[in-house]
Amino acid sequence: MAETTAATKDLRAEAGGAILHGGDLDAARAAFPGAPEPWVDLSTGINPWSYPLPPIPADAWTRLPARGAEAALFRAAAACYGAPSAASVAAASGSQALIQLLPRLRAPGRVAVRTPTYAEHAASWAAAGHAVSGVSEPEDANADVLVLVNPNNPDGRVLPPARLLALAETQAARGGWLVVDEAFADCDPAASVAGFAGMPGLIVLRSFGKFFGLAGLRLGVALAEPALASELRRAIGPWAVSGPGLAVATAALSDDPWIAATRTRLADEAEALDRLLTGVGLTLVGGTDLFRLVSHERAPTLYRALGEAGILVRRFDHRPDWLRLGLPPGDEARQRLRIACNRFDF
Amino acid sequence: MAETTAATKDLRAEAGGAILHGGDLDAARAAFPGAPEPWVDLSTGINPWSYPLPPIPADAWTRLPARGAEAALFRAAAACYGAPSAASVAAASGSQALIQLLPRLRAPGRVAVRTPTYAEHAASWAAAGHAVSGVSEPEDANADVLVLVNPNNPDGRVLPPARLLALAETQAARGGWLVVDEAFADCDPAASVAGFAGMPGLIVLRSFGKFFGLAGLRLGVALAEPALASELRRAIGPWAVSGPGLAVATAALSDDPWIAATRTRLADEAEALDRLLTGVGLTLVGGTDLFRLVSHERAPTLYRALGEAGILVRRFDHRPDWLRLGLPPGDEARQRLRIACNRFDF
Repeated sequence: MAETTAATKDLRAEAGGAILHGGDLDAARAAFPGAPEPWVDLSTGINPWSYPLPPIPADAWTRLPARGAEAALFRAAAACYGAPSAASVAAASGSQALIQLLPRLRAPGRVAVRTPTYAEHAASWAAAGHAVSGVSEPEDANADVLVLVNPNNPDGRVLPPARLLALAETQAARGGWLVVDEAFADCDPAASVAGFAGMPGLIVLRSFGKFFGLAGLRLGVALAEPALASELRRAIGPWAVSGPGLAVATAALSDDPWIAATRTRLADEAEALDRLLTGVGLTLVGGTDLFRLVSHERAPTLYRALGEAGILVRRFDHRPDWLRLGLPPGDEARQRLRIACNRFDF
Repeated sequence: MAETTAATKDLRAEAGGAILHGGDLDAARAAFPGAPEPWVDLSTGINPWSYPLPPIPADAWTRLPARGAEAALFRAAAACYGAPSAASVAAASGSQALIQLLPRLRAPGRVAVRTPTYAEHAASWAAAGHAVSGVSEPEDANADVLVLVNPNNPDGRVLPPARLLALAETQAARGGWLVVDEAFADCDPAASVAGFAGMPGLIVLRSFGKFFGLAGLRLGVALAEPALASELRRAIGPWAVSGPGLAVATAALSDDPWIAATRTRLADEAEALDRLLTGVGLTLVGGTDLFRLVSHERAPTLYRALGEAGILVRRFDHRPDWLRLGLPPGDEARQRLRIACNRFDF
């Protein structure tokens, strides 16, 4: 019961006011004017070792994105994510754009979001007139649309595919949707249900920018059965993804050696971060290989101490005892984090 | 009456099937397999002398677009377009994305589109459940939402600002909208009502990619009174425009000398194209400085003759006697067009 109450409060806060996001160094500089430069931004879950930009042909900038370029992206995305086919894919200018769109494609109904999670889901469904509630156990949802992030952000909780597929069947039987946001599934492909995106009512969202470290490129895809994917493509409209974005992402999604090496590297770096965090006395709650979540009763004070040291981490209005940390982008950043933590009176 | 019937038929065709667009060289190559390479693509209204790309900082690709970068774009767009303030601006991944979005922000109602025009407007409102009709004279609309493209595509027809402002007042008085798509107004700033975007109910759409010759960048803005612009920004959601897009467009929109020189150049090039087209016996119907519209009873035959010569122009299902031609991107392209036309038996 305590969890449900917290979740509901969380959702109300999310739907009402401005949503807190990571990555806002301008705001961090304003909040900590004495902090040393450069800032170490650990407030997002974006891979700091980004995919190296291939040469971008001039006409990717000058011409409208060609259908052939979009088709090539669909094929590369389907292959990389293990989706049934290119016909399962719809692409938009970031998975956030899909989060904004989905609620407008259904008549207002009941929507359940597994909480706590990425706040934009609940806010977007609520803004489109749906009745949104938070659930801790998705089987309790009883809603037209069930939304969950898997692995979850920020706690990294993973629901096994078999459980998700059962949920998808339940949702399909009532004419509803199961939306699985796999923004952080690239590090853990075994957790993904992208291969089952042909099931009725299942919509899988994938985010290009996080794993590939190119969050500014703006590309997110939805994977769904062909008829639904086609409906999504029509609703998104033509030319939603930039020409340079299509060129770079098609190369990156097809680069199997880089993807494999990056999975290994991120796992190693996450382990190193865990050693650092537990070494200074923090309790690990969970995470993915792109971020770790720690808990401490004086987390708000630690947040400020890190801020004054020029290190931005992610805090949560609804869980003041939590802090989420992305991977330090190198030895120097790791060292600054270690020193700042060691100076803190835990 | 004849005009109204043609417009209605046009709208039905547009809403039902795939919409014909320019710029699809893949389809052109398939249709004219013997055509010489490289193709001369005159099928769009995109400036062939694109804004030179400034250096793009690496973090425009790697980081989420910062609020400060978006705010800088809003200021540059407001200044360039003469809108009341940055608070009047909402930005999306292409003006097409705004065309897709607007119909989903109102309960289904009656929508009038001045026809003939860019087909995506009617299709998008119809797809969102609105009752769409075509009108020749916008004062006859009697609709909740009136949409017009000014200067119009493809005929270049311009409604003077005073007439648009009166229409905006009529729409506002009934709680409706006047949507003015100014995709081709950059060449003719006197035709723009962007300076009046503070009026209730008036929404002005601007397209970055056409005048600046960077259609692959994907940026379109809506200009409206601050409360409505804020509603649009919320509906679009965060990070809709790519980081590289924000960087390049902010520089381009602020480059007054380039903008002034480009207006002069495009006017000269449009004049030269007119001389060529009338010289070979075609009748000029209208256009803007980014494209010209000609009429000929054997236009479908000329379309094929040009295609066989590797020159793609824009045809129209609903007006088989029309062809629209963009500016040839240089002497060689102009020469190929002249030769292909001269070989044609008019």
